[in-house]
Amino acid sequence: MSQNKQQTTYDDNNIFAKMLNGDIPYHKVYEDDKTLAFMDIMPQAEGHVLVIPKQKAVDLADLEPDYAAAVLMTSKKVMQAQRQVFEREGIIQMQLNGSQAGQTVFHYHVHLIPSSIHDLGRHAVTQVESAKLADMAKQLAAAITA
Amino acid sequence: MSQNKQQTTYDDNNIFAKMLNGDIPYHKVYEDDKTLAFMDIMPQAEGHVLVIPKQKAVDLADLEPDYAAAVLMTSKKVMQAQRQVFEREGIIQMQLNGSQAGQTVFHYHVHLIPSSIHDLGRHAVTQVESAKLADMAKQLAAAITA
Repeated sequence: MSQNKQQTTYDDNNIFAKMLNGDIPYHKVYEDDKTLAFMDIMPQAEGHVLVIPKQKAVDLADLEPDYAAAVLMTSKKVMQAQRQVFEREGIIQMQLNGSQAGQTVFHYHVHLIPSSIHDLGRHAVTQVESAKLADMAKQLAAAITA
Repeated sequence: MSQNKQQTTYDDNNIFAKMLNGDIPYHKVYEDDKTLAFMDIMPQAEGHVLVIPKQKAVDLADLEPDYAAAVLMTSKKVMQAQRQVFEREGIIQMQLNGSQAGQTVFHYHVHLIPSSIHDLGRHAVTQVESAKLADMAKQLAAAITA
């Protein structure tokens, strides 16, 4: 359990905390009082979106019930927008708990990836240009509010 | 969106519906009024647990807010039990939407897999013997109620 213990303290300087504080720019897809959704800049597939709670939770073990419900309801909105915008049915919802599972940012985050479990992790991990992400964020945001 | 449309009708004869009806046996890890957690008999890693809502939801698009909150809170309990019983930090939470993403049972279900994103899908998919699953279910259930 030593690895577990290492990560239970929330780091206020993690990249998502900085985004929530407005210190780092991002391509917003959706926001409400409890959650924020934005484009992943290192997507595992085109249209990869992340949803985070506005709660200082490292992983699922810290997530409070109100934020859990909010995160899943925002994920639902985003997934439906992804289906519409990218004209595909298959969307993976994934959330990694602990560095041992592959978690790299220690603020709870849900991945919504237009992909298949059979293709997951096979894609090259490269940064997508900002203009393209901005355009996708705009389309998804429009699909959510429509 | 044709593939999406195909799967939006809930099939009362899917395997998880039968489990909820008590028609098929399973290795229970946890149950409350809105959710059920049990051992995956074709685990992607040792200790793979599934959490389902007691709602006729095909995927995330159908999930109602109350059940969304309940499913994540049950997942939290199960994940903490997995960490304790299997003495590992890394737990993947995953949920596939649509056959195109790899969904095979069309009742919403969350996978809780003691594994790493880098190893996911690499394991051979073979059925685990019932006695072993029963033992794991018992240990996890005990860790949740402790």
